[in-house]
Amino acid sequence: MLSPQVILLEHTPNPEWVVAAAARLCYSASGVEDILERLTPERARTLVEQLLARGHESPIEHISFTFAIEGISRACSHQLVRHRIASYSQQSQRYVSMEQFAYITPPTIAAQEEALAVFQEQMVAAQAAYDRLTAMGVAQEDARFVLPNACETKLIMTMNARSLHNFFALRLCQRAQWEIRVLGEKMLELVQPLAPSIFAHAGPSCVREGICHEGAYSCGRLTTNHA
Amino acid sequence: MLSPQVILLEHTPNPEWVVAAAARLCYSASGVEDILERLTPERARTLVEQLLARGHESPIEHISFTFAIEGISRACSHQLVRHRIASYSQQSQRYVSMEQFAYITPPTIAAQEEALAVFQEQMVAAQAAYDRLTAMGVAQEDARFVLPNACETKLIMTMNARSLHNFFALRLCQRAQWEIRVLGEKMLELVQPLAPSIFAHAGPSCVREGICHEGAYSCGRLTTNHA
Amino acid sequence: MLSPQVILLEHTPNPEWVVAAAARLCYSASGVEDILERLTPERARTLVEQLLARGHESPIEHISFTFAIEGISRACSHQLVRHRIASYSQQSQRYVSMEQFAYITPPTIAAQEEALAVFQEQMVAAQAAYDRLTAMGVAQEDARFVLPNACETKLIMTMNARSLHNFFALRLCQRAQWEIRVLGEKMLELVQPLAPSIFAHAGPSCVREGICHEGAYSCGRLTTNHA
Amino acid sequence: MLSPQVILLEHTPNPEWVVAAAARLCYSASGVEDILERLTPERARTLVEQLLARGHESPIEHISFTFAIEGISRACSHQLVRHRIASYSQQSQRYVSMEQFAYITPPTIAAQEEALAVFQEQMVAAQAAYDRLTAMGVAQEDARFVLPNACETKLIMTMNARSLHNFFALRLCQRAQWEIRVLGEKMLELVQPLAPSIFAHAGPSCVREGICHEGAYSCGRLTTNHA
Repeated sequence: MLSPQVILLEHTPNPEWVVAAAARLCYSASGVEDILERLTPERARTLVEQLLARGHESPIEHISFTFAIEGISRACSHQLVRHRIASYSQQSQRYVSMEQFAYITPPTIAAQEEALAVFQEQMVAAQAAYDRLTAMGVAQEDARFVLPNACETKLIMTMNARSLHNFFALRLCQRAQWEIRVLGEKMLELVQPLAPSIFAHAGPSCVREGICHEGAYSCGRLTTNHA
Repeated sequence: MLSPQVILLEHTPNPEWVVAAAARLCYSASGVEDILERLTPERARTLVEQLLARGHESPIEHISFTFAIEGISRACSHQLVRHRIASYSQQSQRYVSMEQFAYITPPTIAAQEEALAVFQEQMVAAQAAYDRLTAMGVAQEDARFVLPNACETKLIMTMNARSLHNFFALRLCQRAQWEIRVLGEKMLELVQPLAPSIFAHAGPSCVREGICHEGAYSCGRLTTNHA
Repeated sequence: MLSPQVILLEHTPNPEWVVAAAARLCYSASGVEDILERLTPERARTLVEQLLARGHESPIEHISFTFAIEGISRACSHQLVRHRIASYSQQSQRYVSMEQFAYITPPTIAAQEEALAVFQEQMVAAQAAYDRLTAMGVAQEDARFVLPNACETKLIMTMNARSLHNFFALRLCQRAQWEIRVLGEKMLELVQPLAPSIFAHAGPSCVREGICHEGAYSCGRLTTNHA
Repeated sequence: MLSPQVILLEHTPNPEWVVAAAARLCYSASGVEDILERLTPERARTLVEQLLARGHESPIEHISFTFAIEGISRACSHQLVRHRIASYSQQSQRYVSMEQFAYITPPTIAAQEEALAVFQEQMVAAQAAYDRLTAMGVAQEDARFVLPNACETKLIMTMNARSLHNFFALRLCQRAQWEIRVLGEKMLELVQPLAPSIFAHAGPSCVREGICHEGAYSCGRLTTNHA
């Protein structure tokens, strides 16, 4: 069954070093070359940790990460592109034929035999309707109106580390939808080893700040941990 | 049949006057009150026309327009929210039950009896599958995976005039999808009377600059006009 | 002596109502007109309070505020324009003659007679150098290289309420520079009566969340309050 | 004499390949791995050229460039940070002592002996005033009010290629101020060899589109070239 697949296509090289250099420049009388020469990887990491502990997030904007994502639904991509400090190139349903569309099955549906049957039958019906419409001469861009939210999409997305922190804060919350949460977890797994000082504490506000904003809708994780 | 409905909820009052005041301030030694006192509505309009003729777009960012939009498909809203210099509040398919979802029928489908039959049958099937899934205890956020792109959505969107110009340039092009083009036309009808000097020349690059970037995919309007 | 002067030029009318309508739409099956009809000002205010208590900030982006600002230094405006989710039209030192420039005197300098003398003497010298350079035919845009950071500037700035919250959070902190803090206080005084439910809790993180990120550099207000 | 110095600190590796992959994904039914495997560097370059010829700029957002800049004035940096789709870390005049500030001399001043004398004298006076104020106990952040626009600053800046195109379009225009134009030229020299297909046609609208928006203020380059 399809699930979010993420490849890290490219990223700013030496991310911790770049962030540390940027942070250091703000508070130093030295020239750029001097700063760069004296900035060892170890020193860079320590600097970044101090920076983030003080809540200074702007220097982490200098590093960006480009992901190739597939195996997500159009429901998920509609949520994803709401993150505005990011760049997207998404597979077009206007230009690409959906004559054999793949689809995402929600785990709660996959877990119930009867629900799964209803779901799959509906996927088959949507494909059939799409095929009949295009066979009648309806353009792809209009035939796709019958395609379901479950339909798979692919995209390439670039976010800088500050926007990623915001993404992880919102989307790794237990209250986020399962699919974008799984996507977020895979993204975090990819970036954390590359810049541990920057992503060590990435996650929802309960993890980062010990605060939950969900009120009556809280998942309770924070209360449980405190108990 | 559903089609894009747009209400202009609110907008910056006296839009031409605000833009003219901002533009005037950049090039004047006078204080703000002096500038404002001497700025008649007629003078403001002339100033804005001169400004835009010279390609100075930044002052029109000061005015913004808030639209309430309904009668558009989720296919359309997915395109819409790709405009990043804007604010959106959209009806949630996670929190709002779709037990009687409305849908958008593409005109090319509505025009063919047979295609319309296939389309409507598929809408009925999608509703039935959604209802059966929720009856089995599947959460709305997962049941909605069977809902079609045609499904109606509602949203409130705010854009400033500069972002609107970009929106009209891209979405009033004949190559844009019909639904977002109709939406764009309705939005333009609403804002043009309020700020004619600002929106007089809004539209695709063929209208604004006499240039078409669509190459082999051009609609040919420009060539025809020039012939 | 010059100090920040702020006029609220225009703003989105009925700000609490617009925000409440946007928030309500997300979670309602009703059409826009229905929602708007039933939304009394009192109901709107309550809804906004609930919204912000849950940390949902996106609907407050729909309302924006346009300020005319004068009596601030170029040092201050350089900080100000670092806020990127905003629009600026600033008096140009390239196009406007600075033959009689006004300037901002920091209170710590105004308070010491001797320092004030040094300061004022230097302002006079800068003006004289500027005048001599332009008299020699040097263009304003180059002559202005001798003008001081203290030099007064004027600008028109538009921010939406979410960006304003961020502005107040950073700039009303005791650690922010005095001039931009005074500016922020005047801005808050102007917007708070217009949308009390939205700006009631605006301010630095110590006020909003009971957290201080300044570490060893903290002003101590939080500790004192807690003691 | 000081002039803009730019180092390209880091950038997205394989920039043309990343852009081509993003563009290709939009119009392909293939999976990501398939697309990547078949994308040779030569094919990537051709794809990017076709893309930009059709005016499709969004895929070039995926690549970003981080510059370390020094030898520019605060006048220049105030213009620079007005580009909002970018990230900045700038040397602080609040935290870094300006006890031996360097400064930028405009070429038109350097070229006139008498003007240069006036200018340099004023730089010395500004330094003296700053030193006297700090010696009297005035904080750096207030003493700096006497420092001139000419004062050197350093910063680290990241822009993606789309924002860079906009930067080059505005700042390589003959009407832009000399200092930011020199900076822009140095930046372009650094990025062009790394991604020739992307930056081949970077520059003002007269170079890119054969259009000048400056009207009566035009430098005349376009008319001359056409004659």
